[in-house]
Amino acid sequence: MVRRGLFIGRFQPFHNGHLYAVRAILKEVDELIIAVGSAQMSHELDNPFTAGERIEMIRRALNSEEIDPSRYLIIPVPDAPAHRVWVSQVESQTPKFDVVYTNQPLTRRLLSEAGYEVRSIRLYKRDMYEATEIRRRILSGEDWSMLVPREVYDFVKEIDGEGRIRDLAKTDTVSRASGEGLEPKSLEEI
Amino acid sequence: MVRRGLFIGRFQPFHNGHLYAVRAILKEVDELIIAVGSAQMSHELDNPFTAGERIEMIRRALNSEEIDPSRYLIIPVPDAPAHRVWVSQVESQTPKFDVVYTNQPLTRRLLSEAGYEVRSIRLYKRDMYEATEIRRRILSGEDWSMLVPREVYDFVKEIDGEGRIRDLAKTDTVSRASGEGLEPKSLEEI
Amino acid sequence: MVRRGLFIGRFQPFHNGHLYAVRAILKEVDELIIAVGSAQMSHELDNPFTAGERIEMIRRALNSEEIDPSRYLIIPVPDAPAHRVWVSQVESQTPKFDVVYTNQPLTRRLLSEAGYEVRSIRLYKRDMYEATEIRRRILSGEDWSMLVPREVYDFVKEIDGEGRIRDLAKTDTVSRASGEGLEPKSLEEI
Amino acid sequence: MVRRGLFIGRFQPFHNGHLYAVRAILKEVDELIIAVGSAQMSHELDNPFTAGERIEMIRRALNSEEIDPSRYLIIPVPDAPAHRVWVSQVESQTPKFDVVYTNQPLTRRLLSEAGYEVRSIRLYKRDMYEATEIRRRILSGEDWSMLVPREVYDFVKEIDGEGRIRDLAKTDTVSRASGEGLEPKSLEEI
Amino acid sequence: MVRRGLFIGRFQPFHNGHLYAVRAILKEVDELIIAVGSAQMSHELDNPFTAGERIEMIRRALNSEEIDPSRYLIIPVPDAPAHRVWVSQVESQTPKFDVVYTNQPLTRRLLSEAGYEVRSIRLYKRDMYEATEIRRRILSGEDWSMLVPREVYDFVKEIDGEGRIRDLAKTDTVSRASGEGLEPKSLEEI
Amino acid sequence: MVRRGLFIGRFQPFHNGHLYAVRAILKEVDELIIAVGSAQMSHELDNPFTAGERIEMIRRALNSEEIDPSRYLIIPVPDAPAHRVWVSQVESQTPKFDVVYTNQPLTRRLLSEAGYEVRSIRLYKRDMYEATEIRRRILSGEDWSMLVPREVYDFVKEIDGEGRIRDLAKTDTVSRASGEGLEPKSLEEI
Repeated sequence: MVRRGLFIGRFQPFHNGHLYAVRAILKEVDELIIAVGSAQMSHELDNPFTAGERIEMIRRALNSEEIDPSRYLIIPVPDAPAHRVWVSQVESQTPKFDVVYTNQPLTRRLLSEAGYEVRSIRLYKRDMYEATEIRRRILSGEDWSMLVPREVYDFVKEIDGEGRIRDLAKTDTVSRASGEGLEPKSLEEI
Repeated sequence: MVRRGLFIGRFQPFHNGHLYAVRAILKEVDELIIAVGSAQMSHELDNPFTAGERIEMIRRALNSEEIDPSRYLIIPVPDAPAHRVWVSQVESQTPKFDVVYTNQPLTRRLLSEAGYEVRSIRLYKRDMYEATEIRRRILSGEDWSMLVPREVYDFVKEIDGEGRIRDLAKTDTVSRASGEGLEPKSLEEI
Repeated sequence: MVRRGLFIGRFQPFHNGHLYAVRAILKEVDELIIAVGSAQMSHELDNPFTAGERIEMIRRALNSEEIDPSRYLIIPVPDAPAHRVWVSQVESQTPKFDVVYTNQPLTRRLLSEAGYEVRSIRLYKRDMYEATEIRRRILSGEDWSMLVPREVYDFVKEIDGEGRIRDLAKTDTVSRASGEGLEPKSLEEI
Repeated sequence: MVRRGLFIGRFQPFHNGHLYAVRAILKEVDELIIAVGSAQMSHELDNPFTAGERIEMIRRALNSEEIDPSRYLIIPVPDAPAHRVWVSQVESQTPKFDVVYTNQPLTRRLLSEAGYEVRSIRLYKRDMYEATEIRRRILSGEDWSMLVPREVYDFVKEIDGEGRIRDLAKTDTVSRASGEGLEPKSLEEI
Repeated sequence: MVRRGLFIGRFQPFHNGHLYAVRAILKEVDELIIAVGSAQMSHELDNPFTAGERIEMIRRALNSEEIDPSRYLIIPVPDAPAHRVWVSQVESQTPKFDVVYTNQPLTRRLLSEAGYEVRSIRLYKRDMYEATEIRRRILSGEDWSMLVPREVYDFVKEIDGEGRIRDLAKTDTVSRASGEGLEPKSLEEI
Repeated sequence: MVRRGLFIGRFQPFHNGHLYAVRAILKEVDELIIAVGSAQMSHELDNPFTAGERIEMIRRALNSEEIDPSRYLIIPVPDAPAHRVWVSQVESQTPKFDVVYTNQPLTRRLLSEAGYEVRSIRLYKRDMYEATEIRRRILSGEDWSMLVPREVYDFVKEIDGEGRIRDLAKTDTVSRASGEGLEPKSLEEI
């Protein structure tokens, strides 16, 4: 019987810490489902990339690293309308899995309450390899190329992801500067 | 003709202030609808319990206090997609009511604009008997048993509600610490 | 430990067959949750009444029958956005339950796949005591008073439920007559 | 004080019957809100045009007829998640109105229950001037030009609306022919 | 061929800066679509007015300024469930447009990525003529009459918009004071 | 530059016709996105399997056929709230694609209007290899094993998919027999 793991993340963007985790988990399971969470979100400062763009990043990076494509699946999972039904939503969008890998406390809690075995991800240089740091460097114009796989870096350049993140930051700055509490999905203000 | 009141709250959790209010309102009306608001929410620091758990708390507490079960109904009401249709949503989920009890300014405003009589709830030791204080004590490990009916305390213990609140707090702390603005329903971040 | 049953129905309207079932189930369990399904629906030919109106019907009928109000809860449950998450949604809106009573095959299937014990409801004169027959009689102007508890009959009269059902039937007839396939929620056509 | 009417329709497409009704209503009210219902729908056999396309049709037709543009507003109104909140949704999207014009029984019922005065529309040659007849003629290749204002005819041609309706009919035919009950929003089947 | 512009804003409320912009844009295009964004929102401190109220404000102001009503359309556009589909949603609710006017960076970005020409709005005394400043003055009891067209001022008075904004501010203050992070649509807290 | 195709279907279940199509398309493109449409749906007679189950079927079948896993991606795509935004939704959930393969007229229409090249799928023994025929055979107890890849057959047996389809058929039969028009998501009727 195949032992299957579920690795949940938002991958905004997919970075070396994620890649390191994929390698580590593949030593423990036969197959890995990489669930791209908050799949409906994009064009927000904390969620700049669409699910499709994130799938492309992950695919290119894993291909380039010669990780066997028969051993993983990449599946987008949208947020659920309520936390209590989120586990059911994940189950409905993915093949059955035996163990979950995540460090996010709420995700751990929900999956544990539903009876799943949840394991922590051993993080490699956590401070550096995290999405927030990457987005910060992009905003401040610092070099971020060594934090992500080469293919991710090239892809983000290709789709002008840096320009997008900078534009999204302007939105938030303007809003905050004017004392305007931007509603999550309100797109317009003159 | 029966005079019916509507008491709106989130009851996260149901505490002695709520119990005191139920007793007071039952002196003014024949029947009381206890509307459990934001019913779809749970597993958030400010909304830790599901509607079902909150209904169970209220039921056990009122039973133990020997409040006549033929005089009240407990009904979950989910948030509406827009504030302007929220009153209609409440009306669709509950039997007709004549007067509303709430201290929440937005709730008051919406119900008043819709033509309802809205009364304030005389609060008993407001500072102490409030949900925020209870959740704060749970997080800091202080005793909170005297703030809620005995049955609520036991029930929260029974479902490990304290553990859940502490886990939810970790989520928020991690997010804030990393400068990550957690999206309301985004569950995943490595 | 209290043994709790869940009785799921739409109760459009609550009739003698439902009442008979409630009595029968209360012999098998200590407490009963009466879940008013499709709670968001109303003003449709097959779902004429709001959840609030249905709760009122059930409450009045059970009160009149002197069924102990400490032994049951009436809880509206809206449909879920997808069948696969429906069980989680029910669980989130209701206190924990041990056994489910329903004759609806899809409901049985979903709850069984989720691991619940599901029991059939012994139906009393099924042909007569069913919501469809009641709505048919209302449309054809036949007497339907003996199919429902007296309080339900009076309540439907009180809110002009007969007039509403007749109006809803006109909508469907007009639509069908004109070859117009009425979209579920399309309200307008000249 | 301005007396304002609300005329609700789907206008799929806007035809001579609608135009006739607009003229008649403008004799009874000072200002008219033309509410384009089911605004989110399009690309269905019974709802082929987007709200934007329907607004364009109406605008061009009324301009060409030299109906004073200061006397009407055209406003799209999406369907509500539940019938019982639909009136609130209309109220939230439109300026206040005093009287409603519609012949649709459900619409009449909902607005009457909410306390509005609802008037019937005197229909001019109803059999001929109706959206269903127009769509039928398009499908069978018959001439339909005299059923709609010239500008509507030209606009539908301009956006290849006839081709769209024919394609949508294929979808439904294929589905029905194969015994496949097409789900409202299921777009895919090989 | 008519050249059509799209002017996107939330207009909470419509002020002199908006009016100035409408005049300026009408010099560059033949027709203008004034899109009232976040149309489903109201009764929030940053979004106090319903779409219908905002449409009424704009209509009255433009009528009073004798701006030709055949040259503009006012259309409410609700937020989309995800940013990436927002442009499609705008397109579905409005007639075709050739150029977009907005200063909001996210709106610019989304429309640019979709291939639209986006122009900036030359702002007139931006610091003063902005919705935030108006709402601030209302809260502090300062005079705000010269910041908006006379008709907007009268209309806000007429519907007690000042009272509404003050009530909404209480909600937020109470919430913040108690350390309670108010969920966007959570209406209830005792 | 990689040329990428998009193959859209519901795959309820994945059968030999689909497999044949995948092989044919892979001769025309470098990479193939297999989009599992109506991903949120399951437990309906026409949509019995969850997206996760369908992904598992496809994966097992393609693995067994030794189709190179580096050449395809399997991605679930939920239905959009409105047809007009469906293409944007597909684009947001998938990597960029150059050409689309589908025979469904509505899908073709929407993608063509959005500017995509759409190709037909050369069908192999269409009458036999179609999902409807498979579900029909399951219901009538006929052999259906030769219509699907071996792995799909085994998987459906493994999860008792036949039992599920039979239960779902009972639901519809009961509903129809009683003259009850089953609402799409209404789960309950006694």
